Amino acid sequence: MSFDRLISKIIEMKNPTVVGLDPKLEYVPNFLQKRYLDDDGWTLKAAAKAIFAFNQAIIDEIHDIVPAIKPQAAYYEMYGHYGIKALEKTIRYAKLNGMFVITDGKRNDIGATMEAYTNAHLGAVKIGDSEIEPFAADALTVNGYLGTDGIAPLLKVCKERDKGIYVLVKTSNPSSGELQDKLMGDTPLYAVMGDMCEKWGADTIGKYGYSAVGAVVGATYPEQLTELRKRLPHTMFLVPGYGAQGGGAEGLKGGFDENGLGAIVNSSRAVMCAYQKEGCDEREFAKAARREVIRMRDDITSYINLK
Amino acid sequence: MSFDRLISKIIEMKNPTVVGLDPKLEYVPNFLQKRYLDDDGWTLKAAAKAIFAFNQAIIDEIHDIVPAIKPQAAYYEMYGHYGIKALEKTIRYAKLNGMFVITDGKRNDIGATMEAYTNAHLGAVKIGDSEIEPFAADALTVNGYLGTDGIAPLLKVCKERDKGIYVLVKTSNPSSGELQDKLMGDTPLYAVMGDMCEKWGADTIGKYGYSAVGAVVGATYPEQLTELRKRLPHTMFLVPGYGAQGGGAEGLKGGFDENGLGAIVNSSRAVMCAYQKEGCDEREFAKAARREVIRMRDDITSYINLK
Repeated sequence: MSFDRLISKIIEMKNPTVVGLDPKLEYVPNFLQKRYLDDDGWTLKAAAKAIFAFNQAIIDEIHDIVPAIKPQAAYYEMYGHYGIKALEKTIRYAKLNGMFVITDGKRNDIGATMEAYTNAHLGAVKIGDSEIEPFAADALTVNGYLGTDGIAPLLKVCKERDKGIYVLVKTSNPSSGELQDKLMGDTPLYAVMGDMCEKWGADTIGKYGYSAVGAVVGATYPEQLTELRKRLPHTMFLVPGYGAQGGGAEGLKGGFDENGLGAIVNSSRAVMCAYQKEGCDEREFAKAARREVIRMRDDITSYINLK
Repeated sequence: MSFDRLISKIIEMKNPTVVGLDPKLEYVPNFLQKRYLDDDGWTLKAAAKAIFAFNQAIIDEIHDIVPAIKPQAAYYEMYGHYGIKALEKTIRYAKLNGMFVITDGKRNDIGATMEAYTNAHLGAVKIGDSEIEPFAADALTVNGYLGTDGIAPLLKVCKERDKGIYVLVKTSNPSSGELQDKLMGDTPLYAVMGDMCEKWGADTIGKYGYSAVGAVVGATYPEQLTELRKRLPHTMFLVPGYGAQGGGAEGLKGGFDENGLGAIVNSSRAVMCAYQKEGCDEREFAKAARREVIRMRDDITSYINLK
């Protein structure tokens, strides 16, 4: 009912990073695309199979180094229900390999509907006497624009099933300031949203001092990251925007507490496409991903004080 | 590239309403649950089949009266990829019956990822030389918290493929005011978001005066609905909260312009569960849904000036 499970893994692996599995088909090496698409035709089904094979190979190579993956729902929805099946399989495969899974869905709705999203992604669905977990992720990203009653169903399941959420606070994109930086009184919207995260998480604080309600804060805004770390002492950060989006490791420092905890940094494209950047044989894509996650871990941990 | 297609249907049918297809399994009559679940077991797959059969029967009975359906993505995600397949089939079946389809997904993300959502729900995905439309809805609800670059990919596809979006502005839930009513300077957040909708839609205004960028404004807040109708002259409203959530027809008046246009009112549970409220034979669920959509149409149009 907090992020203790994830934080324990981070400490054990000395690695506060997460790999975003956002497998656009163009990221998948040609030989793997061909393996599925030549057999089955250029269909959504074949694309989804290629993507799962790609994810599986990367998980095989990184699961002993990286504590978590973050599949981005959009890149699975792109391939219709076949893509969603690949998402289910990716989550299951990562968990079988001991990884913590954060589904990046940025879901949001009114209470009754949010209950459906919660049961889908973190909880279970009742069908007659059976209880089935459709996706069974460990955490979900959500958008708090609708206020408390859109978050309440998530909190219930977080407590019952030891899950977590990350609420969008200060996003990594260039136009995030249009609304999020606007002042409400003398407080920017992102800080108002951050304060709500502290409130929502207040009765779920775990042994490391962090609650089950985290916040998404972009690496591309290091000042706000530092400011929010101080303002939100019980809120763990999921930090996108390192690497491909332009955020450097030194700027991330401010997102961590004095024990090197309190944040997990995401990298997606730089890991998935490491083989392209390296220019190595594309059949080595998973080994290249491994080299990149090691590089990233060493880069980030060189700036923080993780024991 | 505006909401002209939808508005033309509304005028033709003299009916500014949309039926929310949010088929929780408990809404599906027992005889229909049994038909699928007794044969296939109490599985996600069987539940998804029952839901599609339920939707299909309702679409058969309402498509000559109601211009649009609004399937809520959460109630399909609840049943995993089987549920998503039921969503695809529901959208296709409604379109074959001439209906306009608004997928209620409240999706949101940074630009590159929003492009994936856009292609999934409104556009097409390229796989080799093929272009496939995974969901092919006519419109999508979205959340604007990330600002302009999370909306830009949607606008592109709206223009290219004659689609529309509805951005969350003032939602129907009890806690929507926690953030949305807070003042930024002297303007509440919901109005700031509304102003952005006017800006985003500015070059997509159609023959009825409305752009491709609509706004979600809850029937449960009639004052804000009236205020926003005046403030946002080119923004069409999708209005949830009529009926089951407590918003009455008289309070909706303010959401319409002097021609009875500018808004479409949603009802979900009251239509899907009309057979329960009526207490009729459950095998008549679709006929009861038909009676309810006629009642709703007559109720709402008695307050507005739709010619």
